[in-house]
Amino acid sequence: MSVPVNLSDLEALARERLPQMVYDYYAGGANDEVTVDENRRAWEAVRLRPRVLVDVSHVDCSTTVLGRRTAVPVLTAPCGFNALAHPDGERAVARATAAADVIQVVSTVSTTSLEDVAAAAPAAGRWFQLYCYRDREVTRALVERAEQAGYDALCITVDVPFLGRREREVRTGFHLPPGVTLKNLEPYAVAELAASERDSALRKYVNALWDPSLDWTSIEWLRSITKLPVVLKGILVGDDARLAADHGAAGVIVSNHGGRQLDGAVSSVYALREVVAAAGDRLEVYVDGGIRRGSHVVAALAMGARAVLIGRPYLWGLAVDGEQGVRQVLEGMQNEVTLAMALCGKARVSDIDGTLIAA
Amino acid sequence: MSVPVNLSDLEALARERLPQMVYDYYAGGANDEVTVDENRRAWEAVRLRPRVLVDVSHVDCSTTVLGRRTAVPVLTAPCGFNALAHPDGERAVARATAAADVIQVVSTVSTTSLEDVAAAAPAAGRWFQLYCYRDREVTRALVERAEQAGYDALCITVDVPFLGRREREVRTGFHLPPGVTLKNLEPYAVAELAASERDSALRKYVNALWDPSLDWTSIEWLRSITKLPVVLKGILVGDDARLAADHGAAGVIVSNHGGRQLDGAVSSVYALREVVAAAGDRLEVYVDGGIRRGSHVVAALAMGARAVLIGRPYLWGLAVDGEQGVRQVLEGMQNEVTLAMALCGKARVSDIDGTLIAA
Amino acid sequence: MSVPVNLSDLEALARERLPQMVYDYYAGGANDEVTVDENRRAWEAVRLRPRVLVDVSHVDCSTTVLGRRTAVPVLTAPCGFNALAHPDGERAVARATAAADVIQVVSTVSTTSLEDVAAAAPAAGRWFQLYCYRDREVTRALVERAEQAGYDALCITVDVPFLGRREREVRTGFHLPPGVTLKNLEPYAVAELAASERDSALRKYVNALWDPSLDWTSIEWLRSITKLPVVLKGILVGDDARLAADHGAAGVIVSNHGGRQLDGAVSSVYALREVVAAAGDRLEVYVDGGIRRGSHVVAALAMGARAVLIGRPYLWGLAVDGEQGVRQVLEGMQNEVTLAMALCGKARVSDIDGTLIAA
Amino acid sequence: MSVPVNLSDLEALARERLPQMVYDYYAGGANDEVTVDENRRAWEAVRLRPRVLVDVSHVDCSTTVLGRRTAVPVLTAPCGFNALAHPDGERAVARATAAADVIQVVSTVSTTSLEDVAAAAPAAGRWFQLYCYRDREVTRALVERAEQAGYDALCITVDVPFLGRREREVRTGFHLPPGVTLKNLEPYAVAELAASERDSALRKYVNALWDPSLDWTSIEWLRSITKLPVVLKGILVGDDARLAADHGAAGVIVSNHGGRQLDGAVSSVYALREVVAAAGDRLEVYVDGGIRRGSHVVAALAMGARAVLIGRPYLWGLAVDGEQGVRQVLEGMQNEVTLAMALCGKARVSDIDGTLIAA
Repeated sequence: MSVPVNLSDLEALARERLPQMVYDYYAGGANDEVTVDENRRAWEAVRLRPRVLVDVSHVDCSTTVLGRRTAVPVLTAPCGFNALAHPDGERAVARATAAADVIQVVSTVSTTSLEDVAAAAPAAGRWFQLYCYRDREVTRALVERAEQAGYDALCITVDVPFLGRREREVRTGFHLPPGVTLKNLEPYAVAELAASERDSALRKYVNALWDPSLDWTSIEWLRSITKLPVVLKGILVGDDARLAADHGAAGVIVSNHGGRQLDGAVSSVYALREVVAAAGDRLEVYVDGGIRRGSHVVAALAMGARAVLIGRPYLWGLAVDGEQGVRQVLEGMQNEVTLAMALCGKARVSDIDGTLIAA
Repeated sequence: MSVPVNLSDLEALARERLPQMVYDYYAGGANDEVTVDENRRAWEAVRLRPRVLVDVSHVDCSTTVLGRRTAVPVLTAPCGFNALAHPDGERAVARATAAADVIQVVSTVSTTSLEDVAAAAPAAGRWFQLYCYRDREVTRALVERAEQAGYDALCITVDVPFLGRREREVRTGFHLPPGVTLKNLEPYAVAELAASERDSALRKYVNALWDPSLDWTSIEWLRSITKLPVVLKGILVGDDARLAADHGAAGVIVSNHGGRQLDGAVSSVYALREVVAAAGDRLEVYVDGGIRRGSHVVAALAMGARAVLIGRPYLWGLAVDGEQGVRQVLEGMQNEVTLAMALCGKARVSDIDGTLIAA
Repeated sequence: MSVPVNLSDLEALARERLPQMVYDYYAGGANDEVTVDENRRAWEAVRLRPRVLVDVSHVDCSTTVLGRRTAVPVLTAPCGFNALAHPDGERAVARATAAADVIQVVSTVSTTSLEDVAAAAPAAGRWFQLYCYRDREVTRALVERAEQAGYDALCITVDVPFLGRREREVRTGFHLPPGVTLKNLEPYAVAELAASERDSALRKYVNALWDPSLDWTSIEWLRSITKLPVVLKGILVGDDARLAADHGAAGVIVSNHGGRQLDGAVSSVYALREVVAAAGDRLEVYVDGGIRRGSHVVAALAMGARAVLIGRPYLWGLAVDGEQGVRQVLEGMQNEVTLAMALCGKARVSDIDGTLIAA
Repeated sequence: MSVPVNLSDLEALARERLPQMVYDYYAGGANDEVTVDENRRAWEAVRLRPRVLVDVSHVDCSTTVLGRRTAVPVLTAPCGFNALAHPDGERAVARATAAADVIQVVSTVSTTSLEDVAAAAPAAGRWFQLYCYRDREVTRALVERAEQAGYDALCITVDVPFLGRREREVRTGFHLPPGVTLKNLEPYAVAELAASERDSALRKYVNALWDPSLDWTSIEWLRSITKLPVVLKGILVGDDARLAADHGAAGVIVSNHGGRQLDGAVSSVYALREVVAAAGDRLEVYVDGGIRRGSHVVAALAMGARAVLIGRPYLWGLAVDGEQGVRQVLEGMQNEVTLAMALCGKARVSDIDGTLIAA
């Protein structure tokens, strides 16, 4: 293969270039990777009912997310350790998302400080993804810094009380290479992962430092210390979506963490339908997990999602060609979404509804 | 393999003989070819409930299509560029369909002019498939020429506002060899596809010249400039079938363009059931996509189709043995339809109804 | 593999010993062999709900078929040309079925005359399977001879107005080796199959000589010329079972001819449920197609079958070890049925009912 | 592979170390192993609906089984002949289960006497699994010995009136190596399996000596000779669960004997739902068959099981590293259950209910 024609090609290219430990960290999931596979299969199994003879000479796939325009209903998901894919790491992603006019969600465990990510593309839309530390002052400091650095929203991950057991990480003894640290955490001396024989260094780090007692009162506390809108990431059940709305969340991300937490969890497609039904118009609903084609994005919108997040795909682009690689992934996705909308007879995002989906 | 025993053998033979670029153009579909595969699987998954002890000593599989007799309820689909398969191209198909007493649907992007195709077998039934150009005068001229050349119907393709992304075409850099042009378009100087590095020449051609603003008013305009009955090709949803009837179409072809346009679109079997229910007796309903056996044809009739179209299969015959190859495909199909009817206990097409299908 | 442990082993052994043409004739089915595969899969997909703590120290798997005792509810199906598997042909099967106390169904196209088969095991239960010739005098003669030779029932095959297209037969140019003829037909000079290039000799024979106009009046005529009870083989639809009862049949065999006639026909499991519901207590219902395990036999009884027929399995036994091979197949089947009944908590056939089947 | 990361790794290691005859005895099932495979697939197909933002800083996966605490709702199933896996046999399992604070179910056909197993870990919870011999005095003696040795319950296997036909055992001619005997049976001179050419020695033993006439009156007799609570193992149908309660059983184990008895029997998942519905609060319901992950245990609890049994997995641990190997299996399982509960938002076993399961 010379030039990648689709994301599958791109992943193959990235796999060639990345150390096995890094590729497996990105690609893998929990236990038997049943949910990883199911996420993919579920989107591929959705069938669309395209309409014809609609004027689609001008297709506009832009929408708004929490009131901010995005050129296409796709955000980059908060993946950790972008520097493992490319030295430019999160900065490259920041510049690429800015160029594509989409929103970047920056991870707590980024390898660039949240301030430096913001500085790399100041005008762009950007959310900060928060993992809550047992030490609330660390958590508070992160929130305050994100607000100060101009982030648009706080995306709180709620599905990692403990890290899922990703057996590939155990096999490769996943750890950070010398010099790579969690830049956001340097001020609090919890920026390094101790390598561990026959285990994932990340797992030890997470289980020691993140807060497994997080509950709905924690969300209230977080809301009390910030003016940023709060989005909860990792909701799979309608009742939790209702609670999210009750506790003032602005949105929820339907996500099984890319199959990296609870193996056997419902697929993102399954959960999306349930969460949308529960959310009504009280929440914006986003979804991630297994989305690889523009037609999947259109399907997600038809099922009621406001936008989707893609994770692994942009990491493959980053690994292959840095900022340029991410731009190509985002451009490719925009092209695919636009074409899929045209072929579905939908000129605008607001034209997409549930009748597009075959029962 | 020496002599092909079925269409699968024939495809293997054709594949050996054709340049990879051509084989991939014919065989491939959009994106992951999910819908290509689903079309095939869906027909194979239909189960029939054959009746016995019916006198089938004389099976007659002829029917009428728009009032014209066809020896078997099978039309040849409007595939482009027949000269890529065999130098005799559309002429060979014309002679073979005439010999088999079935209707040929000639593509706008044929490699023989529509007049020359007609001249190759003047008495035969023949439809003209129309792609609408942004330049309405080109479109009008094509319609007028088809009418003048004695075509029986106008088959307007409605599912190509833009060309689907067929990744095989991108990989092979699909283009027309020197000397092969779109003969029908020569008078208007849009008969050549500019080769393009790392893309399909066809995609660039289509997206530049065909009309993505086509809508129901366009159908009204087309009907106003011709007396030919109009058939819409590419209908997958009941509501669009109703609109087709409302706008005076005589028939619709249930089609996802052989999986070449929207990947993830419903299978032809799925759509057929929905469209038939919506069409009632206001439209003749035809179907294409994945039909490879006489039993599939009988199943389609049982689900309410008036006839089916086959595309790739006749191209394999054309590639292997020109006119003779197409004749063998059509003969084989007639034999299979006849035998399947006999084994289902149906002596006439009108004896076939929905009770033949297992729920 | 040394000694076969199950029918799958036995088939592998037989395949080694038989000429490819013969193995393919026995093993193959029509077209894509979709129904061949589906028959097998459908039995394997049935799930049983075994009961426990029932005294099964004495399991009796005998039953009656048309009033005659059979040691196990299994008949040998009427397969043609047994001499292709072993020189002793139908005689070996006659002796083996007699030894196993089960009923043999002898084919019209046997390679031993029906009288000689009967003479090989005079006291045994035996049905004559009838293919109706266009020449009614041939048909009448066969019926009269079967009655005279002491056959217990006439099993009329109703699903072969024409022979299904079995592509393996076409590929191998299936024909009878020199000296092998249809012994029953010798008096009428239609005992030989003319070999045919690129086709099945059997297909040419059948299509030329058997009666495709067979209908329900033919059944009435057959009943008028014999006192034997009539069983119709090849019923797949409830309405045809009702007609069979209306026309005085004593039983029907639910069968898609082992997938050798209409490819895409419903599986034997699917059809059995429908036919049993329609038959009520007016007909005995038998079933064949894909039954390879004692648990499948028990499942068939639970769904309402009176008995099952096995075809290919006894041919593999015949091919491997003549009469002894068939005996081992029947013994193995009886052992499996007995064990399956015990493990289901059923001591007698009459204890088996529909509650054994998981919905 | 160096160190096993999951049970699948462990099985691969065990397979390398065990004689093929032993591996096949442990791994195999009846006939085509359809139910063996289905057990596995069915648990993998369950989808969970995890809740978030529940304080799971302290997850307690302990529960009680028949009133006795177990650290995790997992018992070791009564597998025979543990000495085939490791010389320390059942004693190693006793020490490992005691260390893990879970209950061991000791088989009648253990290779250590039930008294010696108890002596290996006196304080631990322990059940005695009973196969009923045709000779009631043998049966009575076993029951009395178990009671005297301090076993907590009597687990009566009810699904082996005859041994299922495990074809791998036939192929390998399964037998016990010299010196390995059924220690519990030595006093009654039925402790040895006679090797048998072309059959399983176990099958001959079982069919000769165990009681196929066992019925509900036998259960009453057993209850009359012991004060131990009685658990019936091998229940797959709701009506049998009701009868179990009517006859005074304290619990039932939903089990198809790991697919080793009736091939084609319903999967353990299917049966669990039916049995739980029938049991109401009259019985504790346990389940075994195909459970390989902590998430499967949590799913079983969510479907109403009180606890699960694992069989093959601990044998792999025993084969690879004796007592230590079993401890690692049990520790691994406890870790997985704990993590799965945390990721499901369940801090205590009593928090788990049916809403966790996706329909």
